[in-house]
Amino acid sequence: MEPEHIRATYEDIHKLIRASAEKIKEFKPDILIAIGFFPARVLRTFLKDTSRKGNIPIYAIGLSLYESLPGMTAEQIGREVVRTQWLGPETAHVLLGKRALIVDEVDDSRKTLHYAISELQKDVERDLEALPESEREAQRTQFAIFVVHNKLKPKLAELPADIPYYAGAEVEDLWLDYPWEAVSDIDEHNRLAAAKRA
Amino acid sequence: MEPEHIRATYEDIHKLIRASAEKIKEFKPDILIAIGFFPARVLRTFLKDTSRKGNIPIYAIGLSLYESLPGMTAEQIGREVVRTQWLGPETAHVLLGKRALIVDEVDDSRKTLHYAISELQKDVERDLEALPESEREAQRTQFAIFVVHNKLKPKLAELPADIPYYAGAEVEDLWLDYPWEAVSDIDEHNRLAAAKRA
Repeated sequence: MEPEHIRATYEDIHKLIRASAEKIKEFKPDILIAIGFFPARVLRTFLKDTSRKGNIPIYAIGLSLYESLPGMTAEQIGREVVRTQWLGPETAHVLLGKRALIVDEVDDSRKTLHYAISELQKDVERDLEALPESEREAQRTQFAIFVVHNKLKPKLAELPADIPYYAGAEVEDLWLDYPWEAVSDIDEHNRLAAAKRA
Repeated sequence: MEPEHIRATYEDIHKLIRASAEKIKEFKPDILIAIGFFPARVLRTFLKDTSRKGNIPIYAIGLSLYESLPGMTAEQIGREVVRTQWLGPETAHVLLGKRALIVDEVDDSRKTLHYAISELQKDVERDLEALPESEREAQRTQFAIFVVHNKLKPKLAELPADIPYYAGAEVEDLWLDYPWEAVSDIDEHNRLAAAKRA
């Protein structure tokens, strides 16, 4: 028998993000740090504020944990977080003084999120060193995290307790089928998702 | 009367990308350079090759043309391409020796794509300078471009003639409604898209 899956359609995820945006607005993010491309792009739409000039900028970071990349040893795959892209030279100081929301698809083992927040906080502390001590506190980046799905399971890493954490949905520890990974047929994926809901 | 729109659902775009992937496979990209987040993520799914170890890495670059960003003057908005993120220090040499596919949502005025390809080619030429002359030709990056929609209209910039160009669909010069910009209601967006098709 096929192990049980959670199937989400694009529309399901779009609506989860829309509902989450109402809560996230309390945090008032200035910038989004995208690990997950789809949720970051949709969330930006819902955080658009007519009183604010322009869109919230999205900065992408590339982190790989579950996915294997060319050149990785078998041991690295599944064990380590690999950084494939980070904030570029144009954006080295983009974090200072900002409210930054880290966005990903799923919080599974929590290792990727732990890595992201730890490394970003290190970057901030290093950049703060260049400022007069009296200005540092005001310029220290405020972080928060948003994931579409948080799997309810023992986590392999912790997040700092003072970081606001938003999840679109808390779900069981089952295989998550995302629509952007539906290789065979997106209509079939949607039919299966609808059948599961019924 | 409301001006005529082209409305695309997530499923429409997913299928356009799936069909395009069959053509793009001829180009055999090693890496994706994402201007458009959604198409890059979906395309990676369809380019997955079981004979290849791992996923094709996606590197995001942030370019803004139509969208205003905080701090831009009125003149900059709509006139210039603004670079909000570029390949980071970890990825400075990621282009050399690679087949790189630049991915975006829509080719409208062509200015963003022109900017991206010109700047990436400059980066490549600068990195090639560091190599012995005999190795440069083999290491020069091969670029191609994929856009979900190409608007049939006079373009304000040209792309190099030798760059393969793939478009999911050629469309009229109408307002394009993408689902990830559907603020009000994604179901209503999909109903309107279905009505238009009928």
